[in-house]
Amino acid sequence: MRTVAIIGIGQTPVGEHWEKSIRDLAGEAIFAALHDAGRATVDSLFIGNMLSGILSKQENLGGLISDWIGMHGMEAHKVEAACGSGAAAFRAGLIAVSSEEVESALVVGVEKMTESLPIETTEALATAADADYESAQGLSFVAINALVMQLYLHTYGWKHTDFAPFSINAHANAMHNPNARLHEAITQKDYVNARMVAEPINLLDASPTGDGAAAVLLVPAGSLAPGIKPLVKVIGSASATDSIAIHSRKDPLWLSAAEKSARKAYAQAGVGPQDIDFFELHDAFSIMSVLSLEACGFAERGQGPRLGLDGEIGVQGRLPITTRGGLKARGHPVGATGVYQIVEAVQQLRTEAAPTQVEGAKIGMSQNIGGSGATIITHIFTTE
Amino acid sequence: MRTVAIIGIGQTPVGEHWEKSIRDLAGEAIFAALHDAGRATVDSLFIGNMLSGILSKQENLGGLISDWIGMHGMEAHKVEAACGSGAAAFRAGLIAVSSEEVESALVVGVEKMTESLPIETTEALATAADADYESAQGLSFVAINALVMQLYLHTYGWKHTDFAPFSINAHANAMHNPNARLHEAITQKDYVNARMVAEPINLLDASPTGDGAAAVLLVPAGSLAPGIKPLVKVIGSASATDSIAIHSRKDPLWLSAAEKSARKAYAQAGVGPQDIDFFELHDAFSIMSVLSLEACGFAERGQGPRLGLDGEIGVQGRLPITTRGGLKARGHPVGATGVYQIVEAVQQLRTEAAPTQVEGAKIGMSQNIGGSGATIITHIFTTE
Repeated sequence: MRTVAIIGIGQTPVGEHWEKSIRDLAGEAIFAALHDAGRATVDSLFIGNMLSGILSKQENLGGLISDWIGMHGMEAHKVEAACGSGAAAFRAGLIAVSSEEVESALVVGVEKMTESLPIETTEALATAADADYESAQGLSFVAINALVMQLYLHTYGWKHTDFAPFSINAHANAMHNPNARLHEAITQKDYVNARMVAEPINLLDASPTGDGAAAVLLVPAGSLAPGIKPLVKVIGSASATDSIAIHSRKDPLWLSAAEKSARKAYAQAGVGPQDIDFFELHDAFSIMSVLSLEACGFAERGQGPRLGLDGEIGVQGRLPITTRGGLKARGHPVGATGVYQIVEAVQQLRTEAAPTQVEGAKIGMSQNIGGSGATIITHIFTTE
Repeated sequence: MRTVAIIGIGQTPVGEHWEKSIRDLAGEAIFAALHDAGRATVDSLFIGNMLSGILSKQENLGGLISDWIGMHGMEAHKVEAACGSGAAAFRAGLIAVSSEEVESALVVGVEKMTESLPIETTEALATAADADYESAQGLSFVAINALVMQLYLHTYGWKHTDFAPFSINAHANAMHNPNARLHEAITQKDYVNARMVAEPINLLDASPTGDGAAAVLLVPAGSLAPGIKPLVKVIGSASATDSIAIHSRKDPLWLSAAEKSARKAYAQAGVGPQDIDFFELHDAFSIMSVLSLEACGFAERGQGPRLGLDGEIGVQGRLPITTRGGLKARGHPVGATGVYQIVEAVQQLRTEAAPTQVEGAKIGMSQNIGGSGATIITHIFTTE
């Protein structure tokens, strides 16, 4: 197993791209990553995507995208793990390069969601949950998360408003990210008055979907001569699962797959939570930020909201999170999100993230979640 | 990179399993593979599946199936490459084990198709083609293959009936496979009189879909003490792509991704076509058998039908193919097919395939195709 470096990053803005298809979006992010790396050819392509079959009537993205980018013949396929598809594809590319099976791998996360009717998108997103025991009973994906948040408030005695700092922080950071879907700073008052979606989740607890693609280029770190940009290396990578249906879990308020994958990634990297300089977490809903922080060892059980209330999650704080806007404000093009998170972690480690740059950031972590905690993939990156 | 062995195989019959869901089917094949291997636990799970999101409203199969089989927490995700999903998932599991990233991997191919309306299935299968430039123009997947077959007949001067031996051979072999969907020997007369589907493809040129799952268990070959069953090792594995749309290819009658992946697999294994004792090829349509044989070096360009007419493809012939019935008669549960092919190759190499056992088989090859040639994955296996 050899160490792998990320030498190119690319992304499209997250938004409504009526004029662009899946292949257009993927191609745009890929060419940006190749340009960033100064490379023209790659051995293999790993695609993170959840909904192309349902929403765009298009599967077989390996053949589609490799052909479109002019790399006819290259090895390519799609990896799916619901909203965790992006990081799952990244991990597949990472293993292929680290194993010496390939010399280079492109990973692209791509999703095209806004051309569909809202009801179609809601139904498509419900495929992340248990079709027989959750979705078929009328539970939408947001409703599942609402049940979890309700239980959390009840169990630990927090108020809904205690979650406001997560959304306010994400929106504030996205103001400086040109690729974010939402450029709209919000206040505590906005949060309190936001329209209810599924009680207690309101519009400012929930991330907006969108169209978008993000890409990275992976090569063996040992092959590289010193370059202009700081070299970002992958030092931890792990994936774990949990019961897909919330009701099957011993404790619906504990993301055991987050704990398992984070612990494994920490061990690989030889670090602990105290060494992480920033954390790109999966804030699909504000409750998920809190559960992720607790399961990864950044807060005691039931104490996650404290980090927000104490101002520790801002870019100047002890543990900056969602530094480029997170899912909440950068947007959540589901199968692409995991790769966006990694692109943003690279920006931080290269000190290309001003004015939301985390000063002196040397070790960053990203975590991507598929379903309401069923598949969780954690990565840790560093730079010298 | 360490050598990987297949120590367990399992499968469900291919058919209409009204009483079984995706998780039931996958679990049945997985438990059979574990039982066959005499193991109870595994590190990781790779799932080949194409249509669960569209037809069963279920994605996130990693969480779903790992939970169902009681291996809560294990790493698991889905790999999709249209009808090539099964072999793509196998290759992902293979790389994970050979790289030492994991110590063991289950690979399961699973598909649930027959609960849907025929029109839904036809639309779902069309996602293997180019949605914008093929499917949206009214081309179904069988229609695309019909255009290719028509061009082949026109270009090389063969008659439709020259393809009969491929279907007759597949049906004959399936008679002895208890897991095959069709147990119905056919004659030349049946072939000629079969109902037309999309000219020149008739019902006996086309493989039937179905529900089913097949699974294998992969471990490092070096870790094993001599066992009762012959050890089957993977000695070649490669994947390649071609333009997804037929009209974009320089030569629509040449499967360049088959040629590329087969050449690479031959080189890894240190063998050539002359060394292959049997070939589980992707006979979704009889024309695909012919194109695959040519691209992999078993026949001259335009001469593929000759192998059938000369009786070389039967289990006693020079190059036995579809020895357990192939897609044509074992059935084609699309995302599962690639794993069925590998299970069947293992049966041959273990000499468990009587009465269609290939005598003295030491080196077997399988090839799985996604779309009409867009993604092609080739594997070579051996036993001592």
